[in-house]
Amino acid sequence: MNELHLARAYLARVAEPPAAALVAFVNEVGPVTAAELVRKGQCPPRVVQETTARREVDQAEQDLVEAKRRGIRLVIPEDEEWPAWPLLSLENAERRGVRSAVTPLALWVRGQPRLDEAASSAVAIVGARAATAYGESLAGEFAYGLVGHGMAVFSGAAYGIDGAAHRGALSAEGLTAAFLGCGIDTGYPASHTGLLSRIADQGGLVVSEYPPGTPPARHRFLVRNRLIAALTEGTVVVEAAQRSGARNTATTAGVLGKSVMAVPGPVGSRLSAGCHELIRDSAATLVSSVGDIMDVVGKLGTQPAEKSKSRRPTDGLGSDALRVHETLEKREGKSVEEIAAESGVPVPRVRAVLPALELEAFAQRGESGWQLSPVVKKSQKTA
Amino acid sequence: MNELHLARAYLARVAEPPAAALVAFVNEVGPVTAAELVRKGQCPPRVVQETTARREVDQAEQDLVEAKRRGIRLVIPEDEEWPAWPLLSLENAERRGVRSAVTPLALWVRGQPRLDEAASSAVAIVGARAATAYGESLAGEFAYGLVGHGMAVFSGAAYGIDGAAHRGALSAEGLTAAFLGCGIDTGYPASHTGLLSRIADQGGLVVSEYPPGTPPARHRFLVRNRLIAALTEGTVVVEAAQRSGARNTATTAGVLGKSVMAVPGPVGSRLSAGCHELIRDSAATLVSSVGDIMDVVGKLGTQPAEKSKSRRPTDGLGSDALRVHETLEKREGKSVEEIAAESGVPVPRVRAVLPALELEAFAQRGESGWQLSPVVKKSQKTA
Repeated sequence: MNELHLARAYLARVAEPPAAALVAFVNEVGPVTAAELVRKGQCPPRVVQETTARREVDQAEQDLVEAKRRGIRLVIPEDEEWPAWPLLSLENAERRGVRSAVTPLALWVRGQPRLDEAASSAVAIVGARAATAYGESLAGEFAYGLVGHGMAVFSGAAYGIDGAAHRGALSAEGLTAAFLGCGIDTGYPASHTGLLSRIADQGGLVVSEYPPGTPPARHRFLVRNRLIAALTEGTVVVEAAQRSGARNTATTAGVLGKSVMAVPGPVGSRLSAGCHELIRDSAATLVSSVGDIMDVVGKLGTQPAEKSKSRRPTDGLGSDALRVHETLEKREGKSVEEIAAESGVPVPRVRAVLPALELEAFAQRGESGWQLSPVVKKSQKTA
Repeated sequence: MNELHLARAYLARVAEPPAAALVAFVNEVGPVTAAELVRKGQCPPRVVQETTARREVDQAEQDLVEAKRRGIRLVIPEDEEWPAWPLLSLENAERRGVRSAVTPLALWVRGQPRLDEAASSAVAIVGARAATAYGESLAGEFAYGLVGHGMAVFSGAAYGIDGAAHRGALSAEGLTAAFLGCGIDTGYPASHTGLLSRIADQGGLVVSEYPPGTPPARHRFLVRNRLIAALTEGTVVVEAAQRSGARNTATTAGVLGKSVMAVPGPVGSRLSAGCHELIRDSAATLVSSVGDIMDVVGKLGTQPAEKSKSRRPTDGLGSDALRVHETLEKREGKSVEEIAAESGVPVPRVRAVLPALELEAFAQRGESGWQLSPVVKKSQKTA
């Protein structure tokens, strides 16, 4: 337990996600200073607004102790395990219409695998809670098959399609990750506590950005959906009514530049209507088999090879990251402030983006400041 | 019974459709002269080749007498009832990959309505013979609903989807037309003879380009499919295996610039696999209701109004027709030979295209030759 984890455990409890101002403040001054200043109320007005209700609740240490006792760890942006690359897709997504497109302050994680590695080749399978036998059977079958192709299956641990997807992946002894819209210890939905334990015990992950004890709420499921969308290559909607959480995840995935797929079903089934609408409106590709899904996800993977001339490794970067990257030079190091001035990207954003660029070997911290990495960078997607 | 009908009745029996060389020859010299020359074997080698096997079979008069007795008429390009406009879509379609994209020499028709009027707002519903109850029920429901929106329903009179579509239209007291891949009197499929009579007796049409007595054959169904595609605004595939005649109609419709629609079904149903493939490959729009179909077909109808600036009335013309149209002038008449020389379109094609342009009020025959119609031409599609 170090001061970074303590600071972020405090910060993650102090504001309701997504806390855009707080996240920007933390990026600017660092988590330890941010935690101190929030505690004292000495921070910008918008941050005060986000944190004022809970700033005196400081149970970071006991959260971390209790979590450790239960096999839960806090994964923070300063950790190697942080999935910095896929979370970059949230950059600037707010202006593209993704409500709450804010990077989480930290993630509570239960289970063996490294979160960043799990997220390196994952597909989301989502859908209706009140699913039909048809939908649940397909969700399970697709999850089983995707595991066979080396993919992890991410979902939201809800009844119906989500649960079937997790179980399908487990039955193939594959990696599955459940993202919760409540505290990681809350045990919701109630009759899925067994499933969640199986996931964590059998090589999977249970993940939440909500502090322990947080009760489930509808808005939290919607906020949670952005993580499922961001941390996967693509989202498969198996069954969804015309307005539904699964469609929300699909829409988010689309805005984040991920593949959106939908499974057709019988015309007249209310639970296929959302899928048909996504397909009809060209918001999703029709998939009817594991092969179809791999084709769609695989297309992304083979793009750099196929289009090696037209595609650059930095094509996956968000616009701030791209602007920061473009100001870096090979031989000369630059300070964060210099980069901010040259790129026009605010200092806090430059601070947030540089470590992610470093993780992906686009940038490195030299003696004289930040500079381009000498390594010829391969695209993330060729893996 | 006039000499044009006699000549075309003879010609329609003398070669197996599609007879590209014969059709071109007839367009060049006119049906009466063409019939005489074919009888004598005095025609270009390719026409001889197409006609040599049957040129001595001349039962045109008895075909017409017998047809009239049975309430069947021969509709020919020289008749007002000829659907010249929709058949223009076959122009040049051969080079776009439609096998047998040749205008028919004549059509045998049974039933009250005018064929051209029926074809002015028709949708094709096609699909597998070995359809499921699901598919048949949807085909019937869609046909019933389309009739309620003023559309005629065209199909191929086969078992399964086709039959269900015809019956659905009949039960709504709507106009339905059955296109056969055999002689109009052949009564195929056997247990659909009753259905065909009901169609003809209850305000619908039975249509075939094959002379009376022609037995059904697989290649004739495929040749027939081009007429269903050409004479409708769009084709809806309700159920189809991955290789099927219905997909052939859909592909043809697409090449002819018509709307192609497909109905989803349960994943795992072999009979929905063709539909899913069409949708996945963006060769068809997913439709799951009559409203969806009307949206797709209706889009075409509203395009000229929405895009009045960018869309011209001649946009629907084939390339030969367009080139011919462009050489016409408002005040000065031109001979066919002059138009051919200026446009680079061969004389027979100019002869074939001009009457169609005239029918659609793009051109008119004046004292000094062919010229532009003074009428401001509205697009066909605004109707």
